Amino acid sequence: MNSILSGINGPEDVRSLSKEQLDILAQEIREELVNTTAKTGGHLASSLGAVELILALHSIYDFSHDHLVFDVGHQAYAHKLITGRRSDFDTLRCYGGICGFTKRAESPYDSHDAGHASDSLSIALGLAMARDLDGRTENVVTLIGDASISGGMAFEALNHIGHLNTNLTIILNDNEMSISRNVGALSLYLAKARLSKPYISARDGVEGKLGELGRVGRFLVDAGEAFKGSFKKLVVPGMFFEDMGIKYIGPIDGHNITALQEALIAAKKTRGPVLIHAVTTKGRGFSYAEERPDIFHGVGAYDPETGEPVSAATGQPKYTEVFSQAMVTEGGNNPDIIAITAAMQDGTGLSAFKKHYPNRFFDVGIAEEHAVTFAAGLALGGKLPVVAIYSTFLQRAYDQMIVNVALQKQHVVFCIDRAGLVGEDGPTHHGVFDLVYLRSIPQMRILAPADGNQLIDALHTALALDNGPIALRYPRGSIVRELEQRPPRLLQEGKAAKIREGKDVALLAVGRMVRIANEVANILAEEGIEAAVYNMLWVKPLDEDAILEASTTKLVITLEEGTVNGGFGSGVLEVLAKRLLDGQCHATRTLVLGLPDEFITHGDVAHLVKDLGLSAPQVAQTIKNKLYGQDAAR
Amino acid sequence: MNSILSGINGPEDVRSLSKEQLDILAQEIREELVNTTAKTGGHLASSLGAVELILALHSIYDFSHDHLVFDVGHQAYAHKLITGRRSDFDTLRCYGGICGFTKRAESPYDSHDAGHASDSLSIALGLAMARDLDGRTENVVTLIGDASISGGMAFEALNHIGHLNTNLTIILNDNEMSISRNVGALSLYLAKARLSKPYISARDGVEGKLGELGRVGRFLVDAGEAFKGSFKKLVVPGMFFEDMGIKYIGPIDGHNITALQEALIAAKKTRGPVLIHAVTTKGRGFSYAEERPDIFHGVGAYDPETGEPVSAATGQPKYTEVFSQAMVTEGGNNPDIIAITAAMQDGTGLSAFKKHYPNRFFDVGIAEEHAVTFAAGLALGGKLPVVAIYSTFLQRAYDQMIVNVALQKQHVVFCIDRAGLVGEDGPTHHGVFDLVYLRSIPQMRILAPADGNQLIDALHTALALDNGPIALRYPRGSIVRELEQRPPRLLQEGKAAKIREGKDVALLAVGRMVRIANEVANILAEEGIEAAVYNMLWVKPLDEDAILEASTTKLVITLEEGTVNGGFGSGVLEVLAKRLLDGQCHATRTLVLGLPDEFITHGDVAHLVKDLGLSAPQVAQTIKNKLYGQDAAR
Repeated sequence: MNSILSGINGPEDVRSLSKEQLDILAQEIREELVNTTAKTGGHLASSLGAVELILALHSIYDFSHDHLVFDVGHQAYAHKLITGRRSDFDTLRCYGGICGFTKRAESPYDSHDAGHASDSLSIALGLAMARDLDGRTENVVTLIGDASISGGMAFEALNHIGHLNTNLTIILNDNEMSISRNVGALSLYLAKARLSKPYISARDGVEGKLGELGRVGRFLVDAGEAFKGSFKKLVVPGMFFEDMGIKYIGPIDGHNITALQEALIAAKKTRGPVLIHAVTTKGRGFSYAEERPDIFHGVGAYDPETGEPVSAATGQPKYTEVFSQAMVTEGGNNPDIIAITAAMQDGTGLSAFKKHYPNRFFDVGIAEEHAVTFAAGLALGGKLPVVAIYSTFLQRAYDQMIVNVALQKQHVVFCIDRAGLVGEDGPTHHGVFDLVYLRSIPQMRILAPADGNQLIDALHTALALDNGPIALRYPRGSIVRELEQRPPRLLQEGKAAKIREGKDVALLAVGRMVRIANEVANILAEEGIEAAVYNMLWVKPLDEDAILEASTTKLVITLEEGTVNGGFGSGVLEVLAKRLLDGQCHATRTLVLGLPDEFITHGDVAHLVKDLGLSAPQVAQTIKNKLYGQDAAR
Repeated sequence: MNSILSGINGPEDVRSLSKEQLDILAQEIREELVNTTAKTGGHLASSLGAVELILALHSIYDFSHDHLVFDVGHQAYAHKLITGRRSDFDTLRCYGGICGFTKRAESPYDSHDAGHASDSLSIALGLAMARDLDGRTENVVTLIGDASISGGMAFEALNHIGHLNTNLTIILNDNEMSISRNVGALSLYLAKARLSKPYISARDGVEGKLGELGRVGRFLVDAGEAFKGSFKKLVVPGMFFEDMGIKYIGPIDGHNITALQEALIAAKKTRGPVLIHAVTTKGRGFSYAEERPDIFHGVGAYDPETGEPVSAATGQPKYTEVFSQAMVTEGGNNPDIIAITAAMQDGTGLSAFKKHYPNRFFDVGIAEEHAVTFAAGLALGGKLPVVAIYSTFLQRAYDQMIVNVALQKQHVVFCIDRAGLVGEDGPTHHGVFDLVYLRSIPQMRILAPADGNQLIDALHTALALDNGPIALRYPRGSIVRELEQRPPRLLQEGKAAKIREGKDVALLAVGRMVRIANEVANILAEEGIEAAVYNMLWVKPLDEDAILEASTTKLVITLEEGTVNGGFGSGVLEVLAKRLLDGQCHATRTLVLGLPDEFITHGDVAHLVKDLGLSAPQVAQTIKNKLYGQDAAR
C-alpha cells in the first residue's frame, strides 16, 4: 500500500515514473486524500478531481524554476503530497499544521498564497512579464477552475494576456462545478465545447500536428463546415479564447495523464499564451464525492466507508441554518424579496430560499462585484434584494457597495456570513475587515447579532428599514443559545441592550463577543469587580446613550471579532471624544479589544482566540491589569 | 441658431422630428456642448461622440417608462440637454449646478447615479429582472463604451445576461478609446470586427431580415464561408458575444441616426439580450477634440476657437506632474521599477514614464483588480511595481490589496492620486475612503505628503522600504510651495515633523490639511492661542511620540481630507486610548476634523471646504468654541 507514494520525496521522483506508475500513484494519492480529509476535513472533491492534472504538470515541468500558480489552491492537495509535505499531511488545516491552500512559507513549490478565486491569471502574467523583462525563460503555468475563470478579474487578466501575447500556459480545469452547480453563459459555452469533437486526444499524437497546423488548427477547418448549419448545434471549441488571442487546446480528458502530458508538451513548444481545456470529474474516485460534489467541496470530518459526517453534534443549529430558515419565512411574507449570492448558495444557506422561491433566487457565480450592482439594479426596479456573501469575499465589492448602493440610498440588505474568525481556512478567509469597510460607507447601517434569535430579528428589521442599505454580519459556527419559538421582532435602530448591571467597568460587545463579555463579567464578579455588559448590536449607528452610560464607570472595554484599526472600538472612541468635547461626559479610559493589525493563521477558532488573548479568562486578566495600572498611575 | 434645440423641452419633442431635423439637432447640440464646456470644462470628447446615439435612442424609446442606463455617464450631456436641463446646462459641474454624470435626483430620465465604469450592465440586468418578476414589459437599454465593457464587472454581467436570457439591449459605443488609447485583447477583437463587412446598414432594411433569419443570422452564413480561410483574416463579427448567448447586431455607423434607429427597432423586436455594436468617433465634430481625444476626454475651460486651455496659471505644477517627473527620475535609477495603471496613464502622469521606459509600463485598461494582482505577480517575480490609480477607483481593488499584496508582504508601491476632494466630478470621484480602507490592511504603510517635495521624498522612500506594501496618497490640484531643487531624501518610517511650536493646542494634520493647519495656527496666534502644528506625514504607522507630545496641550485637533469614520483621526484616538491605559499620557481632549459620514456633492473644492466647515477661519472658530466649551464644562 502506498508503494509508490511513499517513495516520492519531491517532484523529481515523479518525473522518473513510467505512465503506468503515474496511474498507480494517482490512485494512492486519492486514498491518502480520502483517509486524511476523513479526519481533518477539507476541500476534498476539487483535490480528487485534479490529481492527474497535478501529476502530469510535475512530470513535464520542473517547478523548482518553472512557476505553477494555483487558483484558490483548494485543489492543490496532491501537489502538497508530492512536494515534500507528505509526512505532515495529516496536520492539514490544523492549528500549526499545513495550510488548506498553497502558501509560500510552506514550500518553494507554492508560488503564492492562494485563497480567493480568479487571481491566478493575474499573478501568472506578472511572473511571466518579470521573466521576459529579465530575459529569463522559465515556464509559467496556471491551473484554474471553470468557476474561477468566470470571475471578472480573470477576464481582465485574459484580456491583458491576449494583448501582451507572452508565453504562458493556462490549464482550465473544467469540472462543470463551482462550489455549487456552475452558472453563467460562459459555463454554457464550455458545456457545449465539452460535447464537441475533441481536438486533441492521446491517440492523435498532437506534437507534430500542432506544429503542422499552426494557429489555424484542424478543428477550425472542421468547424468551418459545421458553420453553415444551425448555430445552436455549433460550437467552435475555444473560439471564445481564440477571439482573445489565446491559443486553445482541447477538450482533453483531464484524468488521462498521457493525453495531458502531450498537451503540455505542445503548449510548451508554442509561442504566446495557450489554454488547455481539461475536463475532469469533481470528487473523482470517491463515489460519495462524485455523487455529491457540493457536499464534498468543503467538508468536515467524515466516515470514509459511508461518506457520512462525523460531527460532535452541538445540539444547536448553525447561524447559516438560522438565516436559511428566516429567509424562507421572510420570503413568504414579502414577494418583493430577492435573494442573491455569488457561488455560495449552500454556504450561505440560500438553497432553501431557492427551493421555495426559485424565480426570486439568483446565483451569479463567482462575481461579487456584479452581485452587488445587480442588487442595486433590482432595488431601482422596486425589489428588495438580499445579498448573501461571506465577509472576506464581499471585500471584492467594496466599491460597488459605496457607489451603486449607498450613494443611491438603495435598500439592499447585506447578509454577511463567516464574519470574524473562520478557523481552518485561515488568513484568506477570516472575515475581519468588514466592520471597518462597512463603517466607512455613508448611509450604511450595520447589525452584529449576538445569537440566533437576534439574527432572525436583525434580518426582519433590516428588511423593514427601507431608507438605504443595511448589513448583518454573523459568524461561522453554531448559535450559542436555544432558539426561542416566537415571531421575529423589530429592533429599534441604533439601540443597544444592557444585559448586565455593574458599576465598576462596562463591557461593550458585539456579535460572538457578547457571550465572552458575559463570561468575563462572571470571572470579574468572583473578584469583586462589578462589570456591566452591553450587547451593542448596532455597529452603525452606535447607541451613544449606552456609550455615555458606560463612560461613568472606571473602564470601558470594547470587544469585537474584527480588526481594531478603525472598527467598532474606534467608533466608540470617536463618540467618546466628541461627547467629551461637548461636555457630555468625563474623560474615559477605554480598552479596545479585538483582532490585531496582522494576518491571523489557520486553525480551530478556540486555539486562535487563545493566541490572540481573547478568551474570557485572558480578557478578565487584561481588564484587571488595566484597572491596577490605573491605580498605580494615580 | 439653435432653432430646433431651443424647442426641445423633453424627449417627446425629439420623437416628433424628421430624420433631417434630427441631423440638424445633432449639430446644434454639438455647438452647445463645445460652447458650454469651453467655460465649465467637462467630458467633452465622449459626449460629442454619443450625440446621434442619444438622439436615436430617445427617438425610438420612451424613457419616461423605458430605462436608459448610461455607463460612467460622462457621455450623457446630449441626454441632459434634451431631458429638460438645457436652461441649467451652463451650470454643468459647478457648485449647486448640474452634475457631470447622470444623477437620479436631477431628472426622472436618469436611471442611476453613474460615475464608475462598467456598472451599467449589472444595473440594467437588475432593472430587467425586476420588470420580468412584476410582469411588466418596459424596455431596458444600456449604453456602454468599448473601454468600460472590458472591465471585469461588465464581463460578469455579460455572463449573467447570457445565462438569464431576458430582453435587454446593450449599445456598445465603440470609439476605440478609453480615457487614453484602449488596451486589451477584446479591444483588438473589436477593432477586427469594425473592419468586417457590416451586418446591418441603413440600406439593408434590417427589420424584416432579422425576423426572417432569426438568431443564426445572415452574417453567420457569410462567415462560415470565410471560415475555411486563414484564421488571421477572419473575424466573425460578434461571435464573442454570441458565444455568451447575446445576439449581435453590427458594426453600425454610430453617427448615422437612421441606421441606429433601424437597429434599435430590430433589437426591440428581438427576444433575449441584444448587443448593437455602434462605431463612433470620440470628439466628433470638434476638430481639436477629434485630433486629441485624450486631452479632451476630461478638460478644463478652453478657447473654442483654438482648443487651447484657458487656465488661471498658478505658477505651481500639479501633484500629478511632480509625481510624473519623479517616476521618470526613479525609473532611471532602478531598472526593476515597473509602472502600472488602469486606463489612467495621462491622469496619473505615467505617460512620461511610458515614454522613457516603454517596456516597463503597463496600462491594463479599466481593470483595477487585475492591475493590483498583476503587480503582486511582478513583485513575486522580483520586480518593483508602482501602481498608480485614483483613490476612488482603487476601491475596486481593496480585496486584491489585502489578499494578493499585503498577505504575501509584497513590496508594491501604491501611488494614489485624486485623494480627498476632487471638486467638479463630485461624489463618485471624491477620494475620501482611502485612509480608512488602507489603514485596515495589515502590513500596509501609508504616506500622505503635504507638498511637492514631500511627494518626491515619499516616493523615493516608498521605493526603498522593501518590507511589504506602501501607499502614497495626494490630492488633485497644484502643489502649494515652490519645489526645492535638491535630490530626494529618505524619510524615516513613522516619523512626523513638528513644524510649529505651541503650548495651548496641537494640530495634527496630514496631506493638504497641513497648510490649513498652519493658517489656523496663524489665526489662533492673533487671539493669543499658541498652536503647535505637526505634519504627521505617516498615517500608518503613526508617530506615537508626536501624538504623546501633542497630548500635553489642552486640545489635540486632527485634520484630514477623508472620512472621519475610522480614518487618521480615529488612529490618533486609538493611540491615545492605549497610551492612557498604559499610564503614558493623561486624558486628552481630541477634536477629530475631516470629512463627514455622508456623500459630498460636486463643485469647486473651495466651496466644498467651506460647506464642510474646514476652511482655516472655520476650523479656528471651532477650536475656540471647544476650548471655551472646556472652560464652561469645568
